[in-house]
Amino acid sequence: MTISDGVGRRPGGRSARVRAAVRAATLSELAEKGYTALTVEGVATRSGVHKTTVYRRWGGIDGLIADALEMASEEPWPIPDTGSAAGDLRALARLVLTGFTEAAEAPVSTAFIAAATQSPAVADALRDFFASRHDQAARIVTRAVARGELPDGTDPAEVVRAAVAPLYYRLFVSREPVDATVADRAADAALAAARAGTLGQVGSG
Amino acid sequence: MTISDGVGRRPGGRSARVRAAVRAATLSELAEKGYTALTVEGVATRSGVHKTTVYRRWGGIDGLIADALEMASEEPWPIPDTGSAAGDLRALARLVLTGFTEAAEAPVSTAFIAAATQSPAVADALRDFFASRHDQAARIVTRAVARGELPDGTDPAEVVRAAVAPLYYRLFVSREPVDATVADRAADAALAAARAGTLGQVGSG
Repeated sequence: MTISDGVGRRPGGRSARVRAAVRAATLSELAEKGYTALTVEGVATRSGVHKTTVYRRWGGIDGLIADALEMASEEPWPIPDTGSAAGDLRALARLVLTGFTEAAEAPVSTAFIAAATQSPAVADALRDFFASRHDQAARIVTRAVARGELPDGTDPAEVVRAAVAPLYYRLFVSREPVDATVADRAADAALAAARAGTLGQVGSG
Repeated sequence: MTISDGVGRRPGGRSARVRAAVRAATLSELAEKGYTALTVEGVATRSGVHKTTVYRRWGGIDGLIADALEMASEEPWPIPDTGSAAGDLRALARLVLTGFTEAAEAPVSTAFIAAATQSPAVADALRDFFASRHDQAARIVTRAVARGELPDGTDPAEVVRAAVAPLYYRLFVSREPVDATVADRAADAALAAARAGTLGQVGSG
């Protein structure tokens, strides 16, 4: 992500520049220090925006994280298009894996999940973020249905959830390691479940 | 859970009684107030154990939660035995659902996941807790393999993970509602994936 590139380009003048600078600083601070060490002071210093302005406009840490998540929701997710549902779902699961294994991304991704357990505002922002991701990834499933790889009436979001849920389960619940094998297996299981018709739209059969 | 029943019955005299009282108080405080409002003072008052003793022996909130989790790991999980893999997995997923929807259990279950995002000690205790649950639930899969419902070489823990992961994903990641329909669908999808051979032991094919 090259978030700082957005600074100054957006319409809205000073207010928009301040917001972009603070959002970028929040992400950088999270990446370097993680959620528990994030402070309004740190974001203020890094962004060059006065601390009282940050408090007034964002309220505190949770408001900063919710706003950074909103920015992340607006970024397009590079949805794979490999020509097959099997390839697309594996690539999607590996994309999620990368978000939690790459040094630059992992602390930020982890911070979003952690902060949502503490703050209703962050939880709401996280819900919107994943709704956007489910929407974007739905095309993997609609293409697969169009190609005849998956049954009519397959629920796209449900296939996406199934393909990535085992990664999050290991990361945040059972606290087990994740790797490409785990990602591929989750994707393959989601595909098999969808092929068997277990991931249809609720009410459609 | 009738944790307080254990107080005084365990061998070990005063030290064991203190531990049982503090563990029970931690669970009660979590159930009533949740993770963010848990304090050493509150646990000390409720347990009748002096605050300095609690600090000395448990270190603080995270130590208290990790110890309560260890106690929870020792409790047997009522693994369903309905006669079919489909019935057992649905009952298992609904058991997890209940842990997050019943008023008495939900704040405690949620607190364990939330605290693990903040504390490595709690994360370690959570790993042990889920390892115990995966072990206990494995019999659902071994019975299903013995009955010929699932292929030889199916990985029991992986089927259990698949059957419950979508519930945790909605609860803590995508922040979407969960209900019996969600639980049943997760169980059915795990069964279909296992039948298709996608949840075999890694390395066994």
